[in-house]
Amino acid sequence: MSRLNSFIRRMSAQRDCLNTAAELLEGKNGPVLEFGLGNGRTYDHLRSLFNASDIYVFDRHVKAHPDCIPDDHHMILGDILETLPVALSRIGGLAKFAHCDIGTGDKASSVALARKMGEYLNGLLQEGALIASDQPFDMDNWTACPLPDGVAEGRYHIYRKN
Amino acid sequence: MSRLNSFIRRMSAQRDCLNTAAELLEGKNGPVLEFGLGNGRTYDHLRSLFNASDIYVFDRHVKAHPDCIPDDHHMILGDILETLPVALSRIGGLAKFAHCDIGTGDKASSVALARKMGEYLNGLLQEGALIASDQPFDMDNWTACPLPDGVAEGRYHIYRKN
Repeated sequence: MSRLNSFIRRMSAQRDCLNTAAELLEGKNGPVLEFGLGNGRTYDHLRSLFNASDIYVFDRHVKAHPDCIPDDHHMILGDILETLPVALSRIGGLAKFAHCDIGTGDKASSVALARKMGEYLNGLLQEGALIASDQPFDMDNWTACPLPDGVAEGRYHIYRKN
Repeated sequence: MSRLNSFIRRMSAQRDCLNTAAELLEGKNGPVLEFGLGNGRTYDHLRSLFNASDIYVFDRHVKAHPDCIPDDHHMILGDILETLPVALSRIGGLAKFAHCDIGTGDKASSVALARKMGEYLNGLLQEGALIASDQPFDMDNWTACPLPDGVAEGRYHIYRKN
């Protein structure tokens, strides 16, 4: 498969998983955590699904389209392995959803980052919270959820915190 | 529409237009011109549709994935308004296809670039050549072609040189 086709499938899988998570979480309160601002496209999509005032974005730097940048309070700058463990006071409560688009192209280091993030992230999530991720997580108290139609197993992941 | 949805639609439209052009050109000989290497995803897709040895890529610089970089002969570096007018000897004959993914996000300057490119590009194309583009062209001897199913009018463009 060409890289263009593979990319379109990955972007579509991401969008479909975010939409599915938002439907499943309808009516629930709590912060939404976005790991990786990038160009801001996915943050913009999250704003179409959740209240912008609930969304906190973690990234090392801000390189997004000017229309897709959270305000200073909602943009948590730095290495996520350093900002995540101390983020609770900033986000103000346990989160209902986390989206982790943390792959770097280097599979081994991406999986290792997910492994390191897991415990910290778990501590920020409420019971019943959902996690959508481009990387697999291996957490005892997270259950893999069914993927939306058309999303192949392993292309994206949705978990529920028990 | 969120920027994520808009982006997926644009990428899908691009892929579908390239596939359609390749089908229409089946059996024809001649170089294929790609304007904008970017990360190399679209070049990789073109390689799945045409012979890599026929594809010439124009860009200011090479910032693509290492697996998606043409060899030096097929990579034409520089400002396309300078490299295009003198490219015929390099590409070795009139091209059967040109793909122009030249939008910069600034609509006015992207349309202006297409206008400036048009005459030079026209001189490099054989009769019956196809052009797929993210920007509209306004050339007297180019006819707009029907778009693939699902591609909205104006999202992408296919022209045939008469």
